[in-house]
Amino acid sequence: MENIISFVKKSHVQYLKELKSFLSIPSISSDPERRIDVVNAANHTAELLSNAGCSDIAIHFTKGHPIVTGSIISDPDKPTILIYGHYDVQPVDPLDLWDHDPFDAFIKDDTIIARGSADDKGQVFMHFKAAEAFMKVNGKLPINLKFIVEGEEEVASPNLAKFLSENKELLSADIVFISDTAMWAQGQPAITYGLKGLAYMELELTGPNHDLHSGEYGGAVANPAEILSRMIAQTKDADGRIQIPGFYDKVIEIDANEREMIANNPFSSDEYKAELGVEELWGEKGYTTKEHVSVRPTFEVNGIWGGFTGVGAKTVLPSKAATKISMRLVPDQDPNEIADIAEKYFKSIAPKSVQLKVIRHSGGYPVVTPLSSPYIDAAKDALEVSFNRRPLMIRAGGSIPIVADFKKILGLDTLLVGFCLPSCRAHSPNENMHLPSFFTGIESLVRMYDSFQHISVGD
Amino acid sequence: MENIISFVKKSHVQYLKELKSFLSIPSISSDPERRIDVVNAANHTAELLSNAGCSDIAIHFTKGHPIVTGSIISDPDKPTILIYGHYDVQPVDPLDLWDHDPFDAFIKDDTIIARGSADDKGQVFMHFKAAEAFMKVNGKLPINLKFIVEGEEEVASPNLAKFLSENKELLSADIVFISDTAMWAQGQPAITYGLKGLAYMELELTGPNHDLHSGEYGGAVANPAEILSRMIAQTKDADGRIQIPGFYDKVIEIDANEREMIANNPFSSDEYKAELGVEELWGEKGYTTKEHVSVRPTFEVNGIWGGFTGVGAKTVLPSKAATKISMRLVPDQDPNEIADIAEKYFKSIAPKSVQLKVIRHSGGYPVVTPLSSPYIDAAKDALEVSFNRRPLMIRAGGSIPIVADFKKILGLDTLLVGFCLPSCRAHSPNENMHLPSFFTGIESLVRMYDSFQHISVGD
Repeated sequence: MENIISFVKKSHVQYLKELKSFLSIPSISSDPERRIDVVNAANHTAELLSNAGCSDIAIHFTKGHPIVTGSIISDPDKPTILIYGHYDVQPVDPLDLWDHDPFDAFIKDDTIIARGSADDKGQVFMHFKAAEAFMKVNGKLPINLKFIVEGEEEVASPNLAKFLSENKELLSADIVFISDTAMWAQGQPAITYGLKGLAYMELELTGPNHDLHSGEYGGAVANPAEILSRMIAQTKDADGRIQIPGFYDKVIEIDANEREMIANNPFSSDEYKAELGVEELWGEKGYTTKEHVSVRPTFEVNGIWGGFTGVGAKTVLPSKAATKISMRLVPDQDPNEIADIAEKYFKSIAPKSVQLKVIRHSGGYPVVTPLSSPYIDAAKDALEVSFNRRPLMIRAGGSIPIVADFKKILGLDTLLVGFCLPSCRAHSPNENMHLPSFFTGIESLVRMYDSFQHISVGD
Repeated sequence: MENIISFVKKSHVQYLKELKSFLSIPSISSDPERRIDVVNAANHTAELLSNAGCSDIAIHFTKGHPIVTGSIISDPDKPTILIYGHYDVQPVDPLDLWDHDPFDAFIKDDTIIARGSADDKGQVFMHFKAAEAFMKVNGKLPINLKFIVEGEEEVASPNLAKFLSENKELLSADIVFISDTAMWAQGQPAITYGLKGLAYMELELTGPNHDLHSGEYGGAVANPAEILSRMIAQTKDADGRIQIPGFYDKVIEIDANEREMIANNPFSSDEYKAELGVEELWGEKGYTTKEHVSVRPTFEVNGIWGGFTGVGAKTVLPSKAATKISMRLVPDQDPNEIADIAEKYFKSIAPKSVQLKVIRHSGGYPVVTPLSSPYIDAAKDALEVSFNRRPLMIRAGGSIPIVADFKKILGLDTLLVGFCLPSCRAHSPNENMHLPSFFTGIESLVRMYDSFQHISVGD
């Protein structure tokens, strides 16, 4: 084991070189013009799996972007871990807020800055390197690994469930392992036992059939930008409660134990505000900030646009206005039901003076995984040894919709251990990965793989 | 006189050729990148004035775009008419909604489609041609004309008041004449006796100091796009009454006579809705549509933007959101006071969880001119002879802020007779001028100039 750890320690420069190359591919899955780049990233993933010592590597074409699989079967009597990750990334706009080209990774102090450095190329890459270290030093693993790395996570994995259903044998395993979440803080590792679900949609309002002169028509015709604002305003009351009828019906309220566990996780509201540059926080009354971001369902405006947005003053009454909105869900909310009632609500509050078009984007189920299992125990120990700090158990506000599918289709629980920091700016300009956490994280993965061998298959 | 009219009738092809050339210059005054084009349009205006027979042509440079003047003094004992117009135009976006290049005028049926065809190149050009017809046929005018054509009307004429103050002698006249308004309907000419004022501003909200992952932070941090929507929603109540404290304080309510006159102007709500493609209208309770657009102050969202607006789904909680808003004013509202109380109101309703920046754009005073004067009587007769229909007296929803300055600085009333149709799409894609109205309008201007000679100077 110590040979493996020291191999990892000696490989930092090589890791950075390879990571930079992986991060240089603009594999933005939501952008149809990046289709070739996404395929290039799939090929690159296959190459990284090959370097890690995988056999049976395959690039599976789907209706969307490819899924890459590979495996290292060292001892069929030992546990098999199915490692899931994704090689696609979020869009990069607003581009002018990046300090550097998002696809030309830049190292500043102890951080690497690039789109995908945290979410998720950088993190799935850590597993490639942990496996590779075993293979290069020992020629085998203490367990068995299977990899499934997809290219549509950022567009809600529309083709993965079908792939899982059709490849149960190929993907058979004892547990799924995903590194696509964050640590609690620098130096404080965490294991994530809950993820929110997601319902994402777009509302497009059309008022008059063409842009009008706001002087000649203003005051007489519904302004879709104003109506849209009124509709968004009607989605929450003054206490931050979401007003869509039925929205909270299936929410399981947390119990006193979980509430206490969350309260005990260290948190400074002042530091949080300072990091975000806000004077005051804003959230649903009756819950704490830590609860807002972990156990409460939310509604956010992701984008809004309409009318004249250029330089100067143009007196137009716009024909159209639109918004992208999303709701994060908690057990037992169902994303399809939530999308249905949200659509119904918006249709009910849209006045007849406008036409409303609803476009549904991605969705995903919320999940909470068991708080204890031998894999979690092993992960806790490995993280503690590596980071010199016992990990916290947390629920995250992000969504990895596929976790629910792994349970439903393959019958597998998921172990979620992530290594980026909360300040990693995933989905934002200057996304980054803290390199000491990255390198130590690879060591902790080596230790996890090693201790998983003592778990009996079937536990 | 009939020689002049028949000269106009024979010149249609030549007029269209020259108009197309004038319309081909993209003189968008609000766009700093179009500065050279705006100067080119000023030069082109000077050339058109020269062709019309003007002397003393000058291009006056200002802190902004140039002002062009010229005059034809035929008989100092006759009235002098100061014709005001503008050679600048509105921006053209959204460009994809134009059927043709907005700066390559296209003739479809009896309409010419191009940016500026109605507002105002096409209309000021009509005066050039009416003057030119007299000069080419008779070598002189029956009255005296002075022209002042500016390049900053679409950005609220920031340098014109100073120019008027400094050039009172150059601009001395008996009345101002502006053609930058619309007819009531095809075949139904109109004289405009009132214009709304304008207060235009931009609100920019900043929440967190960078775009956030809407899963990791959603529900805990104020979303500026949502807050902005709530602020816009708070600007009107359910009856469409503007909620800015003091907004209506100085509004002069119309009297029963004026209300009746407005009610008598022919109008079909069904045709209006059909033309705009809306199922229902929307406006301040207690007033009719014709009143909304003529005598009531209004508030409109001209543009709104924030967060992700590209293709697909990006789960971002945006750092910033912004809107361009404008209020149209009626006597005796003061645009500076209204901008002050609006800014104060928005600051009072912006929560501490966001920072609000207010940027003030253009402003202008509302005006109502006398309903009768010998010039209005002469215009009515000339319009009736030319269009075979008695003109209506109307108040328009648009703003020509300079009209108030002509009164205040030069002591002159303004005669407002416009020739575009209500369907001219000023400020919108496919802006157009109805050619039969354009040609008949030039004839009516010839007749007006002719009958103005009988008005005693000083009346």
